[in-house]
Amino acid sequence: MAWRFALTIDPAAPGDPRGSFAETFTVIDPAAPALSVGELSTQRGDGIFESIGVVDGHPQEVAAHLERLVHSARICDLPEPHVGQWREAVAAAAAACGPGESVVKLILSRGVEHGPAPTAWVTAAPAADFAAVRERGVRVVTLDRGYALDVPARAPWLLLGAKTLSYAVNMAALREAKRRGADDAIFTTSDGFVLEAPTASLILRRGDTFVTPAPHGGILRGTTQVSLFAHLEEQGFATAYATIAVSDLATVDAAWLVSSVRLAAPITAVDGVALPMDAAFTAAINEYLLSPRD
Amino acid sequence: MAWRFALTIDPAAPGDPRGSFAETFTVIDPAAPALSVGELSTQRGDGIFESIGVVDGHPQEVAAHLERLVHSARICDLPEPHVGQWREAVAAAAAACGPGESVVKLILSRGVEHGPAPTAWVTAAPAADFAAVRERGVRVVTLDRGYALDVPARAPWLLLGAKTLSYAVNMAALREAKRRGADDAIFTTSDGFVLEAPTASLILRRGDTFVTPAPHGGILRGTTQVSLFAHLEEQGFATAYATIAVSDLATVDAAWLVSSVRLAAPITAVDGVALPMDAAFTAAINEYLLSPRD
Repeated sequence: MAWRFALTIDPAAPGDPRGSFAETFTVIDPAAPALSVGELSTQRGDGIFESIGVVDGHPQEVAAHLERLVHSARICDLPEPHVGQWREAVAAAAAACGPGESVVKLILSRGVEHGPAPTAWVTAAPAADFAAVRERGVRVVTLDRGYALDVPARAPWLLLGAKTLSYAVNMAALREAKRRGADDAIFTTSDGFVLEAPTASLILRRGDTFVTPAPHGGILRGTTQVSLFAHLEEQGFATAYATIAVSDLATVDAAWLVSSVRLAAPITAVDGVALPMDAAFTAAINEYLLSPRD
Repeated sequence: MAWRFALTIDPAAPGDPRGSFAETFTVIDPAAPALSVGELSTQRGDGIFESIGVVDGHPQEVAAHLERLVHSARICDLPEPHVGQWREAVAAAAAACGPGESVVKLILSRGVEHGPAPTAWVTAAPAADFAAVRERGVRVVTLDRGYALDVPARAPWLLLGAKTLSYAVNMAALREAKRRGADDAIFTTSDGFVLEAPTASLILRRGDTFVTPAPHGGILRGTTQVSLFAHLEEQGFATAYATIAVSDLATVDAAWLVSSVRLAAPITAVDGVALPMDAAFTAAINEYLLSPRD
């Protein structure tokens, strides 16, 4: 992947009274050394991030991503991100993207060890080509995330619900899925409920109702899932958040993993058992997700 | 903290037939930019690390740390570290440390996203002054780590037992401990057993027996704990690995958190309940831990 653009942000800099934050940005070469070895993002995975899909230069659902960045910062005791500053940085990165699909990534790190303030940067890069996977779908396996459903509410220090840089387990789960001959994973609770994929939300269809796992189980609030639910409701479908047992997966009419860059990937099988697919409906969903969304 | 030294390692470089790896090292300015924003250590906390205590230029227990680095790499599906290469890098960093206590940190990252190979580096820095905490001790709180005792064995993708860079939860637990007026935390299982501290091992004393939680609970094999157990056995004490209930903490004769740089910190209270302390014995333990150990 060729990086297209990167800039660092000084998140502690005061805003310009005229409303531009350009002076707090430094455009950098994304392939050149930019971070010191003292970075706590790299030493401790101590920071938060967002990945925003960009279609033909338009960054999708920026407000929802920035809202989640603020939410993650709160859970992680990081200084509250200045939304205006980040919005401007996202716009600058998106402007560098050109036609087609790209990904803009936002990182807010706790900073350099013993340093005075957080560090932050934004990158832009072409997205991988997900056309085939959106059409052909993904085989998934269920993997226990080890927590019971009630753990997140009573143990906030586990940072469940924050999109932190500590993603080693998410990456390991994807490797485990591949080892089992699948493409992706669905995390489950130790007491038998479904949660989310390592880098995507889960949406199930039953008749004319679309369901996704309730966020109290310690999952991320999926920006793509929220956007898609609003769209489905406009089309007259019902949507719901629910506590969903693993055994319910076998009885759905269709299921998707949805995320900001890959968008909607239909699930073709769970733990080796085939699920029904609706190619036309999936294409329509992805058409919506590729349209400009704010 | 002023960094003293840093070098990057090319972990994919073949070894020199004469046995020196110096050509695979690049000494860098530890305060200067060295890592690109594409680093997976920083984007995903995807890598492993070790922190080695250095006393008057002597790196402690290097073999045990490198053994654990290899173990962590295996759990994380990283290429096996070349022990000779890392040992030479540690020696170079330790040589830059000067008198007093220092810390040498080893990081092996999965590399730059879509890049060909892992990246790796070693840093050296003066250690914080832990003299007071070794004498006065730490108040700890117990914090649920959310997993039942049997989870690590059945869910290896959770990477429990690997020392990964995804330490955001460990850092959050330390903040939670401070919020509760304590200095440190002891993680417990959701079914009521003690595990380890976010950056230290737990050792309990009952009569002339020293006990530490058994590693099958998904904790790190503490290099300092192992070294101290060997020393205690030489002195005629008994040592054991055991499954320890949280309720057992209240009845010990003494307890310590031990780690490579802070060494042995006596625990003065657990969840607000005072524990007995043995100042002379603690001083003797730390005297041993500060002596040259291989």
